[in-house]
Formats: sequence, structure tokens, C-alpha cells
Amino acid sequence: MGGRRRIDDALDGAAGGGLLDRRALLGGGLLSAGLAAAGAQAAETGETGALPPWTTTPGRPMSGYGQPSRAVAAVKRLVVAPPGRPGTGASRTPHQSLEGTITPNGLHFERHHNGVPDIDPARHELLIHGLVRRPIALSLDRLLRYPMETHVRFIECSGNSRDLTADKPVQAAAGSLNGLMSCSEWTGVRLALLLDEAGVEPGARWLLAEGADAASLSRSVPLAKAMDDAVVALFQNGEPIRPEQGFPMRLLLPGYEGNINIKWLHRLKLTRGPTYTRDETSKYSDLLPDDRAELFPLEMAVKSIITRPSFGLDMAGPGLYEISGLAWSGQGRVARVEVSADGGRSWAEAALTGPVLPKALTRFRAPWRWDGAPAVLMSRATDEGGQRQPSRSAWLAKYAPGQGYHFNGVQSWAVDAAGRVSNIHA
Amino acid sequence: MGGRRRIDDALDGAAGGGLLDRRALLGGGLLSAGLAAAGAQAAETGETGALPPWTTTPGRPMSGYGQPSRAVAAVKRLVVAPPGRPGTGASRTPHQSLEGTITPNGLHFERHHNGVPDIDPARHELLIHGLVRRPIALSLDRLLRYPMETHVRFIECSGNSRDLTADKPVQAAAGSLNGLMSCSEWTGVRLALLLDEAGVEPGARWLLAEGADAASLSRSVPLAKAMDDAVVALFQNGEPIRPEQGFPMRLLLPGYEGNINIKWLHRLKLTRGPTYTRDETSKYSDLLPDDRAELFPLEMAVKSIITRPSFGLDMAGPGLYEISGLAWSGQGRVARVEVSADGGRSWAEAALTGPVLPKALTRFRAPWRWDGAPAVLMSRATDEGGQRQPSRSAWLAKYAPGQGYHFNGVQSWAVDAAGRVSNIHA
Repeated sequence: MGGRRRIDDALDGAAGGGLLDRRALLGGGLLSAGLAAAGAQAAETGETGALPPWTTTPGRPMSGYGQPSRAVAAVKRLVVAPPGRPGTGASRTPHQSLEGTITPNGLHFERHHNGVPDIDPARHELLIHGLVRRPIALSLDRLLRYPMETHVRFIECSGNSRDLTADKPVQAAAGSLNGLMSCSEWTGVRLALLLDEAGVEPGARWLLAEGADAASLSRSVPLAKAMDDAVVALFQNGEPIRPEQGFPMRLLLPGYEGNINIKWLHRLKLTRGPTYTRDETSKYSDLLPDDRAELFPLEMAVKSIITRPSFGLDMAGPGLYEISGLAWSGQGRVARVEVSADGGRSWAEAALTGPVLPKALTRFRAPWRWDGAPAVLMSRATDEGGQRQPSRSAWLAKYAPGQGYHFNGVQSWAVDAAGRVSNIHA
Repeated sequence: MGGRRRIDDALDGAAGGGLLDRRALLGGGLLSAGLAAAGAQAAETGETGALPPWTTTPGRPMSGYGQPSRAVAAVKRLVVAPPGRPGTGASRTPHQSLEGTITPNGLHFERHHNGVPDIDPARHELLIHGLVRRPIALSLDRLLRYPMETHVRFIECSGNSRDLTADKPVQAAAGSLNGLMSCSEWTGVRLALLLDEAGVEPGARWLLAEGADAASLSRSVPLAKAMDDAVVALFQNGEPIRPEQGFPMRLLLPGYEGNINIKWLHRLKLTRGPTYTRDETSKYSDLLPDDRAELFPLEMAVKSIITRPSFGLDMAGPGLYEISGLAWSGQGRVARVEVSADGGRSWAEAALTGPVLPKALTRFRAPWRWDGAPAVLMSRATDEGGQRQPSRSAWLAKYAPGQGYHFNGVQSWAVDAAGRVSNIHA
């Protein structure tokens, strides 16, 4: 039959190292090629074992706000803070334990400069002032009357994946290396509506955005971005935005580096030029090899990571596996993701889970039959603008030594003959 | 200018009672028609007030798993359980306090028949048996190697909105009336792959799906549905599925009534016909006026609810508001939602937030200038198959008195001159 032939063709491989054609997923029969045996072997026990306690004893009652199972208590953010300053640091999304594209609110990454403020929304206002015809101040209750919009968007810290620029490969989980990046469905008021109401003066070209936290974190935002797809976000994955993400409101600048998406948004001042705040003079510039620096490199580039297999998720012997990962671009939609199982000598196109949305995480998947020999897994994404993720070495060559912001080079996972997975620089 | 003319046209109204054209949202200038004054008035205080404590004192540290702000502690599920049987009942999603389309995992509705089991995933297996060539048993670890897929899907209890069939209008929040319905991004293994591996015998036409809970909840599933878009779900909004939703695995039958999406999925038995289990003989049939009953009415019909304004969210005086709500259909995509502000005499088309996905919640929004006179708000949805939500009276006429399952009639919110919102039967 045609279907069977197609599957056999697909099983012949789409690239070296056992990568199968993504069409194989559509055919069904793939499983009999690798997964079935172990399943059948265990079937005997299904009907005969004693009933477990959770089937013989009533379970716990309903609850007002649910929590994860205690069996997955280890699925949590990795908290990193300097000694003595517990509110100044970051926590990372454990991508190696997650699937799909939405990051649950409890696991969205954090990066704070003086802790998480405990804001009373009744005492919080957003002031829009500076080069405007009339300043306005907006309470949360007032903002809730405005027209809203909903978008799935990723946020990535500019320092995400910095460890991948280190000379020696850091051995850590996919989320430890790349977990300063998360994705939510955000709902809020389009900033252009509010600026229109305040009346932007002709000379204004930038905004100063300020947070109400104890760091008063402040960043300069190009007016063109503020008038484009910027949103004052009030809801995250359906519910009021979380404290760590800016409750009661945050500035959402889709595709821009995390830090400029000001949390606990308190003031927006229209200005002629950038303010060069404390938070953006010593940091968030890209150092170039010729001793110059690129200022305000705000847009996050196209990037991808493989989350399974990855460090800590070792292989259970030869056979069929699915390679799963995430791709994104601050410049629009992901157009394609390629994966390699032979260290970049050959590449196969991965399947993208739809809908593929702009400036949102996209899940990619590729079937892989591991023959038990050492292998090197890589992924590289291309966005709809044609930008392709560079190799690690090509990325390093673009910047001065020590540059650690905005890394988007290809990452490599090595699988050894025992199935152990490690981070390598290929 | 053309833009201004378009806005003025839109402000002329799209339907009676002050409903504006949804295109008005695109133009910007809408705000100057109703919302601006109050904003400007408050602006004086923005720069002069004393700094709040959260700006002058370091905030709290990062955390492994985040929680909502204590300021929104009231945003929780409404728990309803009979006295003495705390695990047998339901909790409802507070849709009146939410926005967007994703339900956060902590607020997904619950309906249990003997509580929430505390399952050790290492001791749990999914057995596929009955009319198959070889029974297979799958552990969670094993399932994690299979090809996965990700879809946003709603789940709605067949008893959702039952209170709307009562003779006297029940005064309760939108989520209390309609909150046995939630929407998540689910990731798991397509059931057809697993059935293909077990090898379905020719005589099989149905499956018996059984849960591992202490109610051993069991339902009959048509094989055609199992081979179509059914999934064994392992992840919910990115993280391992919650205990209340079936950890470590649940059957997801997109568009089918909630109860048949068996949680804590433990066994699937291929059978010749439906099993008529305890859980589906006394319940989940639709009683018709001629004393007959419709058996296995599994697919949820097209439906919509207005979540804002709604009972408990009263109006703050005349002016501009956004009407916001949710629409869905178990049969595919929502094609359009119409809203009325004059009790159904005239209707305006609402804007749908994209992407509009099949068998997923769709957020709709419509601008409304309330003149302060009493009004009656309604919404009615039509799906891509052309099915349109019936009026409440038309729905009631289709069934025997007392029928309470599968209500999808139009709901009406009355707004009185003081801005108070109540549930009425219009």
C-alpha cells in the first residue's frame, strides 16, 4: 500500500545519524519499528496487580486554587541569587521538564534587581507624562475598561544562554542553560491607544519606562516600538499578571529583550532621545571586536534549543525517540527548524506545531532512531525574515571576547554510547 | 481625514443600545469619545504622592514555583460539594475575573466523583486490551518517548450552565453560572498511534475508558472518535498535567462533554458496543419531550457567554466600555459572535481574538457606549459548521422539563440605571 511504502521511505532516514523524515509521524506504523516491544512486554501486569491505594481510598477534596502533584515537586525554577541579596538575581524555567509552548505562570522565569514588590493595586497608577499634550494617570480599574487584546508572546532575558559562551562547556539542564526565556498568553491594552489619548508632542521620539519596584528599574523605549505592538499587560495566561511578572501591570514589547519589558509599570515619560539610565549604560550593549559597542540592540534574534533529549534526560537504550525543542524569533514567525544528529554534517527538517505565531515559542519535533553509537544533536532555526541561527563559533566571532548578551548560536548535545547526554561545543 | 471619518461612522453605532462598530477599535480615537476625561483628572497626583513602601523597601526573593498576588486572593475556583462528601462535587473557573483564552492550571474547573487521587506515576500504567491483537501497557516514562502533539482545547462539563434552565434567574457570577468550562494547551500522544500499536480487531467499535480514581469512573467512547483527534494528554499548559485534571495522564476527546475525558486514565478496553456503565446509564442522556432519551449526546454544541460586564462587575457610570466574552464549539471553530445591548432586538458583530482555533475558547470583544439607561446584554455564537446558539426558550422547548445537560441557550445580563448587572431570562 502507498501508506506503508511512504513509511518505509521515511524510515530510510532524512539525514545522518538515524534522523527520520518528519512525514513518518503522519503514517502511524513508525511505532512498530522501535517502541512496541517494551510496551507488549509489560502488558501482563496490567490486570493482575493489587489495586493501588488511590483506587481504594477516596481522594482529596476540590480546592480554590490548584497546585502541581507532589510527584513532580522537582519541576521548579532554578533560583540563582548572590549571597546576601536574595532579591537580586534570577530563576529559570525548567524547559527540560516541560512540553508544548505555554509556560505555566508558576514557572515563568524571573529576573529582579531588588526583589518582587508586593503592590496594592488600589494605590498603583500608570502616569503618562513628558512630551504629551496632557498627562494622564490610569488606575488598574480604569485600564480594565479599555479595549484589550490577547497575544501569545515569548520574553527572553538578553543574558539568556550566556553560559554557552564560556570556554569550557557547562554541564547543566536545558532550562538551566536556556531558561531565562518563557512564553505566555498576555492580555492588556495597546499602548498606542493610551499614547493617543495623552497626545504625543511632535518632538517626542523615545519613552522612559519606569518600574515601581525598589530598583526603580528604568529603560528607554523607541517611540516607534511603543506605537507598534506594545501592550500594557494586565493578564497572563488568563489570570491577573503574577507578582514576579509585574503585577498589577507590565510593559510588553514583543520580541524585545526581557529587561525592557518593564514590570510593575509606573511611569512612561515621552522624551526627545534615549535617557541612558543607570540600567542601560553599564549593561545591555553589545561589545564588538573593534572596541566599539552596539547600543540598544533590543530585538532578540532567531534561536532554538533542543529540550529532549538533553542533559539529565539520558537515553534508555537504542530505539525510536522523538527529539523535541523550542524555536523563536523576536522578529516574527519561525519559518523552519532543522535538526542534526551527526554534529551538523547533515540536517533534517523538523515538524513545527501549529499555529506558528509571531514572537511566540514554537515547538518543533523530529523522529529519531538511535542506533546506540555516539551522536551529536543540534537544532538551527530560520525565521520568516530569512535570518538563520548562526553556529556558536560564528556568533563568537562577531563580538568582543567576554560579550555575553544576546547569544543565539547553535547548541550541541552529545549522546555517548551509554546514552548519557552532555553539553559540548561542536 | 479618512481615518477620522471611519471612526465617526463607527461611533454612530453598529446596533441599538449604544453598541459601536468593532472597526472602531482599529482607529484609535475612540477613547476621546468616552474614557479620556477621568484619566486626565487623576493625573495631578502621579508625580507628587509619597513613595509607596514597595518602592522604598527591597521586595521578596525569587521562588521555585510562583503564586498569584495576595491582592487577587479572591480570584479562585468556587467549590461546591455536598455535606460530608468533600471529594464529590465541582469547582468552577471564575471567568468573570479572567481574560484571554487560556485558563491557568490553578483555576481549571474540577468535577470529581470520589476526590482527587494522589498517584505515584512510577506505579501507574495505561493498559490497552480487549479486542486487540496484543494488549499493551504503557508507563509514563514509556509514553514520554512517543511522538507528541500540542493543541489548545476547551473542556466543558455537560452540566455546565444548568442553573440557566431554572425557572427563576439565579443571581451569580459568570463563572458560577458557566464555570464548568476551561481551556488549556494540552500536549500528549495521539491515541490512534497507541491503538495502531495494539492492533484493533475488526469487530471493535467502542472503547471502555476507565480512571484509576476511587470512583473508577468509566465511560464508553466511539472508536471513530478514538481514531480521530483523541489524545492521551500528559502536559497541560506546558507542565505535567495537574492532579485535578488526571495526573499522570488523561483521555482528551476534543469537543466531547467533560466527563468522558477520563482522568487518571488507567485502562482502555476495545469492545463491540458501548458498555452502558453505571456512570452513563443514569446520567449524561438528554431527555426529550416525547419521553424518549437521546443516548450518548457527546459533542458539546456552539455557545458563548459575556464575562464583562456580568453579575458582580457593575458599571461605573455612563461612558465607553468593552463587552468581553468567550465563545466555543465542540464541532470546530467559532465563525462569528454577535452581541446585543437591547435584549436581542438588534445585533452587532463582535471582534474575535485570533488565532481562532478549533474546539478552543475564542475571546470576543465589542465596544459599547452605555448611555445610563437600562439595557439587556446578550451574545450568540455561530460555528464554522453553521450551527447557531439558540435562544433560551428555543433550547428549553427541545427537551423534557427538568433536562439540565448540554444547555447552550443565549444568556442575558440586565444592566439597570444604577449600573447593577443581574442575570435575567429574556
